[in-house]
Amino acid sequence: MTNIHPVNGFHVAGVHCGLKKNEKLDFALFVSDHPCTAAGVFTINQVKAAPVLLDMARIETHGTSIRAVAINSGCANACTGQQGMDNARETARYVAQKIGCDENEVLVMSTGVIGEQLKMDKLLHGVDLAVGALGNDWEAAACAIMTTDTRPKIASITVEQPDGQPYTITGIVKGAGMIAPHMATMLSLVVTDVQLTQQQAQTALKAAADVSYNRIVVDGDTSTNDTVCLLTNGQVAVKDIEQFQQALEVVCVQLAQAVVRDGEGATKFITIDVSGAPDDKAAHQIANTLAISPLVKTAFFGEDANWGRFVMAAGRAGVPLDPDELRIYLSDDKQRIPLMINGVPVPNEERASLIMHQPEITVTLEVGTGSGRSTVWTCDLSHEYVSINADYRT
Amino acid sequence: MTNIHPVNGFHVAGVHCGLKKNEKLDFALFVSDHPCTAAGVFTINQVKAAPVLLDMARIETHGTSIRAVAINSGCANACTGQQGMDNARETARYVAQKIGCDENEVLVMSTGVIGEQLKMDKLLHGVDLAVGALGNDWEAAACAIMTTDTRPKIASITVEQPDGQPYTITGIVKGAGMIAPHMATMLSLVVTDVQLTQQQAQTALKAAADVSYNRIVVDGDTSTNDTVCLLTNGQVAVKDIEQFQQALEVVCVQLAQAVVRDGEGATKFITIDVSGAPDDKAAHQIANTLAISPLVKTAFFGEDANWGRFVMAAGRAGVPLDPDELRIYLSDDKQRIPLMINGVPVPNEERASLIMHQPEITVTLEVGTGSGRSTVWTCDLSHEYVSINADYRT
Repeated sequence: MTNIHPVNGFHVAGVHCGLKKNEKLDFALFVSDHPCTAAGVFTINQVKAAPVLLDMARIETHGTSIRAVAINSGCANACTGQQGMDNARETARYVAQKIGCDENEVLVMSTGVIGEQLKMDKLLHGVDLAVGALGNDWEAAACAIMTTDTRPKIASITVEQPDGQPYTITGIVKGAGMIAPHMATMLSLVVTDVQLTQQQAQTALKAAADVSYNRIVVDGDTSTNDTVCLLTNGQVAVKDIEQFQQALEVVCVQLAQAVVRDGEGATKFITIDVSGAPDDKAAHQIANTLAISPLVKTAFFGEDANWGRFVMAAGRAGVPLDPDELRIYLSDDKQRIPLMINGVPVPNEERASLIMHQPEITVTLEVGTGSGRSTVWTCDLSHEYVSINADYRT
Repeated sequence: MTNIHPVNGFHVAGVHCGLKKNEKLDFALFVSDHPCTAAGVFTINQVKAAPVLLDMARIETHGTSIRAVAINSGCANACTGQQGMDNARETARYVAQKIGCDENEVLVMSTGVIGEQLKMDKLLHGVDLAVGALGNDWEAAACAIMTTDTRPKIASITVEQPDGQPYTITGIVKGAGMIAPHMATMLSLVVTDVQLTQQQAQTALKAAADVSYNRIVVDGDTSTNDTVCLLTNGQVAVKDIEQFQQALEVVCVQLAQAVVRDGEGATKFITIDVSGAPDDKAAHQIANTLAISPLVKTAFFGEDANWGRFVMAAGRAGVPLDPDELRIYLSDDKQRIPLMINGVPVPNEERASLIMHQPEITVTLEVGTGSGRSTVWTCDLSHEYVSINADYRT
């Protein structure tokens, strides 16, 4: 677990209200003393859960005065029609009443099973409990938003400014399956005490998401509920916006990589580096095709250096590719070995097999002489992934 | 196993030459007494195996005088450079010498591990054995082209013509993984004794592939070796080309469905019907997204009517979709029940669960009021799929 730096002016709680069984934490509340400027990136799935639609609208209309975020696990409140939207609003309204703000200043997120209605009596009881428990227990809050995650995921950084006050960025994320690299790919909340305009916040979050959440794949599926929100409470002036951007990206990359490391059933953390493509988009398409390929992922699970599958996946990525220019390398933290140079296999089976047995592996594909490059982080496909998702609702 | 109708003028054999272990059949030979008109559809993977490149060229230049097809399993002869191409040519040359024809009149197909060279001494010995074994044992031939397939796949039909001679269409296919719905998705050879021009043969095969091989998904990966060839030896005049087309499609659909039924680790045969899309292509994109979704596939394996995942997959298919118009039905051979009507869930959990326990299940999605429709056949994602592909080369 990373060192957690609480952010001045924010109070958090994670409680159990009964949406999940076995006393598991299932409701988190985040309250700000000051009105926050908010930014959000949301799922590109056309079927958007009620809380996604609600938050998109509220960031639009009340994006400079957000006071709280309520997040439940155990139920996604997706495909729930008008009742689902009513329930999302009611959650926000109840939080607003308890902490003393306008209901439009409360955001709501949900994660869990699609197509079931929220149990509102339990959820509102959760609000009561959480309001009473507000403090600095970020770990409890991060636990309360987990579904198939096996551990809470938090990233936190404090930035010293030579000619100004220090500021802090602290974020949490949940997500282990239904993870694909689109505009936003899970639930994540990042809060900071800096002062930003809404435009600055949105630009910063979008750019950070592009190099973090949008670079990860667990299974290629995109959820109905994906949301990443940034709340900034305006207490510290930022002297160097570039420095802030970098710090935000460090936090988001840590959170995104934590999702892959905790990917459903994952036994390995795999980095796929593609370069030499006509442009970055083409490089990303190739890297992403490897990352979602069941045959590539099962080869990693089997610790089998079956690099023919890397070639197969690159060749089906829908990007122009000259097989005679293809170079493939495999590396761990100690060595990097060639598997294919200009389309010709390099016999390296034994060394490749040693690398495949490592927990962190990088595949490098040089696909031509273009300037396009992309890095994607993913995990293997294991029996455990199948078990988790076959038995998810039972 | 379907009734096999041998085709007049064709001789086949399946033998063991040592490319695979444990005496498994690994080389098949198909020889025609008459020069055949040939048509082919090939993988759209940009990395094409040597035999794919060779066959594409030969059908172009010698597509009205093909005399034989040699198919080996155990090695894909893909990513093998110049030596791989030399080996493919040498195989054809040796077959031609043995049966007495020009080497350009022999097609070659390979399937198995990517990136390894063919063991030519064994393969040429296989040619000797197969030439000596030529006859009507289509089952042995179909077995000899298997990789992770658990059973040979043959389809066969004899068509009576009211005002002409009967003709026969017999085909085999291999394929269980690396199956995605593109122009061609496996190795398949279909032979018939009708008379067609090359243009007619190509048009007929392309149309048949579009409603069969291009409608199936096992895992969404596309092989470097996919080839479907049609050989017609010209002995019977076709009176009704429509009737021939229908018969060819019956054979190809049977073969394609057999691939899904024998999909790696498959425990269920799933039909995904999409209608009401803006056009057929959009409908296919939605059906295909469900068919490759790991979360949809594991729900079927878990026999869990977690239809929220159908909605999730439809929503991420990249096709305009109004969630409020979405209707979803689940059916087996006895009943069809609604799960969602116009975006609102229909509580049908118990009946849905009963259907999910059946071996053959249909999911129907009505996504709007358009005229586009598509059907895709797929299977579930099981532990066994992971095992097969984690251990493939060991």
